Amino acid sequence: MGEPFRHRLRVRYSECDPQGVVFNANYLTYFDVAITELWREAFGGWEQAMSDTGLDIVLADATVRYLGPLRFDEEFDLVARIARLGNTSITTAIEAIRDGAATAQGDLRHVFVDATSRKPAPMPDSVRSTLERYSG
Amino acid sequence: MGEPFRHRLRVRYSECDPQGVVFNANYLTYFDVAITELWREAFGGWEQAMSDTGLDIVLADATVRYLGPLRFDEEFDLVARIARLGNTSITTAIEAIRDGAATAQGDLRHVFVDATSRKPAPMPDSVRSTLERYSG
Amino acid sequence: MGEPFRHRLRVRYSECDPQGVVFNANYLTYFDVAITELWREAFGGWEQAMSDTGLDIVLADATVRYLGPLRFDEEFDLVARIARLGNTSITTAIEAIRDGAATAQGDLRHVFVDATSRKPAPMPDSVRSTLERYSG
Amino acid sequence: MGEPFRHRLRVRYSECDPQGVVFNANYLTYFDVAITELWREAFGGWEQAMSDTGLDIVLADATVRYLGPLRFDEEFDLVARIARLGNTSITTAIEAIRDGAATAQGDLRHVFVDATSRKPAPMPDSVRSTLERYSG
Repeated sequence: MGEPFRHRLRVRYSECDPQGVVFNANYLTYFDVAITELWREAFGGWEQAMSDTGLDIVLADATVRYLGPLRFDEEFDLVARIARLGNTSITTAIEAIRDGAATAQGDLRHVFVDATSRKPAPMPDSVRSTLERYSG
Repeated sequence: MGEPFRHRLRVRYSECDPQGVVFNANYLTYFDVAITELWREAFGGWEQAMSDTGLDIVLADATVRYLGPLRFDEEFDLVARIARLGNTSITTAIEAIRDGAATAQGDLRHVFVDATSRKPAPMPDSVRSTLERYSG
Repeated sequence: MGEPFRHRLRVRYSECDPQGVVFNANYLTYFDVAITELWREAFGGWEQAMSDTGLDIVLADATVRYLGPLRFDEEFDLVARIARLGNTSITTAIEAIRDGAATAQGDLRHVFVDATSRKPAPMPDSVRSTLERYSG
Repeated sequence: MGEPFRHRLRVRYSECDPQGVVFNANYLTYFDVAITELWREAFGGWEQAMSDTGLDIVLADATVRYLGPLRFDEEFDLVARIARLGNTSITTAIEAIRDGAATAQGDLRHVFVDATSRKPAPMPDSVRSTLERYSG
């Protein structure tokens, strides 16, 4: 079992809708921040991980389960772990946790593609071996 | 088989990311617009559909499959149909279609809840019978 | 006196904040749409206007006056006119008008810059002569 | 002379446009965060400052000067000071500073209004005296 990655954010006013809660689409923005920060911790950043590989990485699937309200000014943790390291893809599972309870959960599947042909390509070994410590 | 609902949008510059394509979270914003417009056509609007029911409707699950790039200034259609009318929930399937090809597909499951207790509640018959024509 | 340009939009749920009104920053997004559409009408689009000029155009200043609430699902018109055609800059004045009353007014000053040096450069005559009909 | 307030942020990918820089409207979102954080430091928060006053506070005017590009993943400071404490209004001047240089400057004028009549109302003395230390 690997260790989860944790990144704290605070809800901005602009992210909330007339019901006073984080608008549903904004969770995908939060999850994008979590993945950026996980790759920063793991590799120094996305660019450092992918340079000289000739590959790009694109989002293929996203799933969000909405579990409860998250409101303006509340602090929450994005807790991310690598749920699956496939041949050409990575699934990252992320929870937004406020006061010990998840307000949303998401799974994001990214696919490695050849930077020129845009076709799926095997994950570089250096990426796989580094991300294994976030697996679980 | 019901008829799909169709609503045309044009990609705004602010919705695109440094790769020049619609940022992934913005598809959920588009899908929200599609559902608002479908309910406007079906009922005159969400408020008209739900008034006097004592119920509210909340998003429980969202899934997005990203199929290809959609760029600034491109026009596209949101094509929505009701994929499932459950006892307490509705699943709406939406495609973003540009030049005859889907750039993304989504499934959004909304749940009816009691406005006071926030617990799941059966879909009103008036909602079910009206949405049936979008089923398929 | 030129003619104002008019473009209709409807407020999206995601654009409203917990007070139930359009969040202040989103007016700048609306104004960006208005300018895109004005340039589409005038030139066929920004790219058509600027191609072969070796110039780029950047936003230098924006001012917004907030005059009243604009709410979810309301339709409104963006009414734009060219307030000033300077040597190297254009000021576009835009109002968001709902039911005959402005809910916000903005002035956006864009500057022409050399695409390479990024220094201010004179407005092309073809741009000036075409935009004059929106002056007033 | 008072002391400026400082709050650090990092540019999110979703905040950048196809030119690879922060989209112009997002500076107003940043400035909103800066004011929220300044009021947190000064009063514990906006609600604490305004409770029992019968007043509300609304944004009346915003001005942004765009001075240079700010890019994905860059860290920057929002540096805010109270530029003017009027009878019924507050002007907050904010700079976004990256590596010692401002990429944008803004002035936001908020007005106190009676929570019921929505008419301008004098700033509470408790607010004025506390904000004076950020004046300059």
